[in-house]
Amino acid sequence: MIQITLPDGSVKSFEKNVTPIDVAKSISQGLARNVISASFNGTTVESSTPLTTDGSLVLYTWNDKEGKTAFWHSSAHVLAQALEELYPGVKLTIGPAIENGFYYDVDFGEHTVSDKDFKAIENKMIEIARGKHEFKMREASKAEALALYIDNEYKTELIENLEDGTITFCDHDTFTDLCRGGHIPNTGIIKAVKILSIAGAYWRGDENNTQLTRVYGISFPKQKELTEYLELLEEAKKRDHRKLGKELELFTFSQKVGQGLPLWLPKGAALRERLENFLKKAQKKAGYEMVVTPHIGQKELYETSGHYAKYGADSFQPISTPKEGEEFLLKPMNCPHHCEIYNSSQWSYKDLPKRFAEFGTVYRYEQSGELHGLTRVRGFTQDDAHIFCTADQLDKEFKDVIDLVLYVFGSLGFENFTAQVSLRDPENPDKYIGSEENWTKAENAILNAAKDKNLNYIVETGEAAFYGPKLDFMVKDALGRQWQLGTIQVDYTLPERFDLTYKGSDNELHRPIMIHRAPFGSMERFIAILLEHTAGNFPLWLMPDQVIVLSISEKYEKYAKKVLTLLENNEIRALADNRNETMGKKIRDAEMKKIPYMIIVGENEEEERKISVRKHGGEDLGMISVEAFTEIIETEVNKTLKQF
Amino acid sequence: MIQITLPDGSVKSFEKNVTPIDVAKSISQGLARNVISASFNGTTVESSTPLTTDGSLVLYTWNDKEGKTAFWHSSAHVLAQALEELYPGVKLTIGPAIENGFYYDVDFGEHTVSDKDFKAIENKMIEIARGKHEFKMREASKAEALALYIDNEYKTELIENLEDGTITFCDHDTFTDLCRGGHIPNTGIIKAVKILSIAGAYWRGDENNTQLTRVYGISFPKQKELTEYLELLEEAKKRDHRKLGKELELFTFSQKVGQGLPLWLPKGAALRERLENFLKKAQKKAGYEMVVTPHIGQKELYETSGHYAKYGADSFQPISTPKEGEEFLLKPMNCPHHCEIYNSSQWSYKDLPKRFAEFGTVYRYEQSGELHGLTRVRGFTQDDAHIFCTADQLDKEFKDVIDLVLYVFGSLGFENFTAQVSLRDPENPDKYIGSEENWTKAENAILNAAKDKNLNYIVETGEAAFYGPKLDFMVKDALGRQWQLGTIQVDYTLPERFDLTYKGSDNELHRPIMIHRAPFGSMERFIAILLEHTAGNFPLWLMPDQVIVLSISEKYEKYAKKVLTLLENNEIRALADNRNETMGKKIRDAEMKKIPYMIIVGENEEEERKISVRKHGGEDLGMISVEAFTEIIETEVNKTLKQF
Repeated sequence: MIQITLPDGSVKSFEKNVTPIDVAKSISQGLARNVISASFNGTTVESSTPLTTDGSLVLYTWNDKEGKTAFWHSSAHVLAQALEELYPGVKLTIGPAIENGFYYDVDFGEHTVSDKDFKAIENKMIEIARGKHEFKMREASKAEALALYIDNEYKTELIENLEDGTITFCDHDTFTDLCRGGHIPNTGIIKAVKILSIAGAYWRGDENNTQLTRVYGISFPKQKELTEYLELLEEAKKRDHRKLGKELELFTFSQKVGQGLPLWLPKGAALRERLENFLKKAQKKAGYEMVVTPHIGQKELYETSGHYAKYGADSFQPISTPKEGEEFLLKPMNCPHHCEIYNSSQWSYKDLPKRFAEFGTVYRYEQSGELHGLTRVRGFTQDDAHIFCTADQLDKEFKDVIDLVLYVFGSLGFENFTAQVSLRDPENPDKYIGSEENWTKAENAILNAAKDKNLNYIVETGEAAFYGPKLDFMVKDALGRQWQLGTIQVDYTLPERFDLTYKGSDNELHRPIMIHRAPFGSMERFIAILLEHTAGNFPLWLMPDQVIVLSISEKYEKYAKKVLTLLENNEIRALADNRNETMGKKIRDAEMKKIPYMIIVGENEEEERKISVRKHGGEDLGMISVEAFTEIIETEVNKTLKQF
Repeated sequence: MIQITLPDGSVKSFEKNVTPIDVAKSISQGLARNVISASFNGTTVESSTPLTTDGSLVLYTWNDKEGKTAFWHSSAHVLAQALEELYPGVKLTIGPAIENGFYYDVDFGEHTVSDKDFKAIENKMIEIARGKHEFKMREASKAEALALYIDNEYKTELIENLEDGTITFCDHDTFTDLCRGGHIPNTGIIKAVKILSIAGAYWRGDENNTQLTRVYGISFPKQKELTEYLELLEEAKKRDHRKLGKELELFTFSQKVGQGLPLWLPKGAALRERLENFLKKAQKKAGYEMVVTPHIGQKELYETSGHYAKYGADSFQPISTPKEGEEFLLKPMNCPHHCEIYNSSQWSYKDLPKRFAEFGTVYRYEQSGELHGLTRVRGFTQDDAHIFCTADQLDKEFKDVIDLVLYVFGSLGFENFTAQVSLRDPENPDKYIGSEENWTKAENAILNAAKDKNLNYIVETGEAAFYGPKLDFMVKDALGRQWQLGTIQVDYTLPERFDLTYKGSDNELHRPIMIHRAPFGSMERFIAILLEHTAGNFPLWLMPDQVIVLSISEKYEKYAKKVLTLLENNEIRALADNRNETMGKKIRDAEMKKIPYMIIVGENEEEERKISVRKHGGEDLGMISVEAFTEIIETEVNKTLKQF
């Protein structure tokens, strides 16, 4: 008999060689039907793996991340089998589960594959799935393994490079693949399959190697889930910030300027500025002071901060000068510069906290293949600030920063978010710098603040950086996708490395603590997420153009102009469309530009000195006075944009 | 007989071998007394040089730049003689006239010289000057010249490197120096001398060579002029922006960040922002649109613009990437980026002019020895904009830019300025790119605009850049020093190089014309000049702190706080000094910080709900109400900060 501990802490006795699925059955048939993978003593096992020792068992269903991983990993096997059957002689390489689905990198040899073939692949996969073939792991010798792949140089290379130990295969139906394990019980669970795309991929990611074809797919245990996923994908495509950015004339890229370096067009630059001014205003009230620092610094600066040793080789390389042998780096972060500003004066405890803020543009190298619109760029502007305070001030400072972040999220329509508090690993105290006392203070400060501010938070022990604990905000967008926005980080290292001090009430020199924080994170990434979250329908206070005045014909252009001036006098951002086009066309164009309010002026309106108002999306507010309209605007702005 | 043409066009006959001073005497004894140098047919001659051919003669006095150059060049000879007499065995190298005075680079050998020796050097120079020794040029053979400097490796090197031709010496008193000529008649004219400083200087500016001692001096024909100059120097020292920048806590530099890279402290960053917002507001009214572009660009971008070929070798060197072999440059200017923004859309003639503005930070390498506070830096922010327009729009655009520049100068207290219009050299039409027709249009547009706007301007023919004519503003500061601020430049090259087009009313593609313009020039340099011009007493609207509230004792702190809140509610930038210090000390500190208004509150003020107001500099405005005071502030602000 062996003792199996379940996640709820209960311990049950089973005969040796019991399988996870047997354990599930012993709990309930319903659970057993849903279990699709398991882990035993922290290691992934098959649901059919015989358990031979005492240990802790976790059973996973489709609702667990681990369950999905097993599901998609298994689906990759089915994809591989389908490809082998449809394209005889293809050479398989690797095929992992990913965040959404799975892929397989394949050398198609003489075959060519296009999106026209996706349907056939899907059908073949479903056909295989319906066979309800069990996934069975088995061990093999290196010689056996190499013999199997005598014609496949990729698998051969993988086997040759395997560290000593057991080589394992997974069999299902007629198909066999080199595999480490972690499958669903049988192929029958896979009810819906979609091949999403194909792309080129170098063998082992090295551009000197053969280019393979990467086949991306996704699968689900129910057809309905696939349908929903495809709808989400369709909606995400419509909201793609790269598409909206172009339609709304916010930003562009230039091959000549360089990849991953956005150029902000007038409407985008104005949007950025509005966001910056919004935060500046709140920060001013919160006691921050703006500073301005250069975009480069001597290599020595980053040697002092430790960034050069850690990231130097993978970053934009040093900038040399024609004379004097100096070396500069594009700044990857603003903190070293702010430390030097702190160091330019002597501070007393009475001067602290000092809060230096900067919309600082930083540059970080990313491979061109990793770049993506505004979410992965090579140059971006952080809404950065560094707070220098005493240990006693940490508590209040942390709470104040949370208030600021919540104010930012609230003003921008992000209502669904959680916080993640990352603390030390208590088992490895040597991994961290800073005194035990300060760490305890800092961790308590963060936990207290999270509690006090009623945050919905989770604690991740051992996830703190070596230089201090932190709190990250995870935001869910309108499509349910999760984004990390806003971070607050405590830092004991930089004050040490830059020898920052203040004179305490005891007249001795002490080290301040540093807090790094950025509510937006990066202006570029934030605007991208906001675009996708709102589909370009920003909160009214932020919209580049709030109102468009559409004149029914040339005759009413003059009245339209008058209305425009009235709106502008009320600080409403408005423009006019006096083109010689039909009203239908004008409205369609305004819809496309996402302008929240359309004002239509013609004979009736001019006669009655009123305006007809139509909201973006179609709602008709009827004919009202300009005063009534400005009140509507004001009310809507005040609904989201509250005072900090 | 020879014919001598004078600057007024008159021609006079003289016997061959007449000297310039003889010609001066023939005009008037007064003139002859004042003539200190001359040029004949465009070449500098001595006032005692016998003229042997027909030609044009210009006579210079102390009031001419050329006269001063001869005066100071001659003074350098006297300095050299004095040094030889005082420090036997010193080795002379070179000693030119400079903008203000002269210097001599000397190898002092075993001697050491410090500022304690300046008086003795001055005395010796005056003693020599009083001898009224004539300066006499003579020719010598190379052998003769080398023999004279047998012990002086520097002069030997100079002689060895002389191109073939005549070697000339100048003798006066017992002293002889290798010299190209251009002296005052005799040493007697030098009435006042000051040795200003000594500094290290490498032989031929190369740090691998011996370090010499550079002795700086200045001299005048009247003692009074020296006194005035020293007073100006003293005042300039007090107004030195590096000193004021520190006292007013505007900016700092860090050895670790790097030389020539200013870090803007909170008060400085706020000052910058206020200046930027001021210009942004005016620019918005003038139809500019803000854009934001990255601080780097691919090398290719600058190859297209032509900047790389021209400046690449002397600039910050390219930034390579760890993979993909890309090369980027720190941007030295914003125009290529703005051209790429223009190119991201297709424009019709109806869309023009487009006016893209950006406070763009650019980086240009300067040798560390050339760096100076904020006036010569390695990174600075231009208030840049580029106007893309048709040839027909150039006239209006140019005038509008002038209006904007005049508005900027007027709001910041620069009242004394001239404009310089730089046109083509009509003799060398091939030097320029762009059609004859467009050049004529552009030059006329600039000249018309200058006339129309009643500018005090001079025309410099042949000073246009090869890519277009321009207009520069030269501003005189409170100490009478001239600074180039604000430039407006027409450009035909970049539209060509970036293949910029617009669709004309004829439906054909045309090239737009580009105007580069920057009223401030650079934020850093402008703030430096403004600091020195105003001695830190900026116009009230710009002052970092406009008012300081000084409480007579702790008892009135609460009332002081109330006053502060009232002021802040009226958008007056105020702070309080509630330190436990004497009122005298508080006032002195506020004076030092240049705060324009001090409000003193004590028993009387609190009782009467009033405030006592003292202006920076001492003027007492008596006890008034806060309302009356805010009106004073408003009136003063409106005096300089008018609406654009």
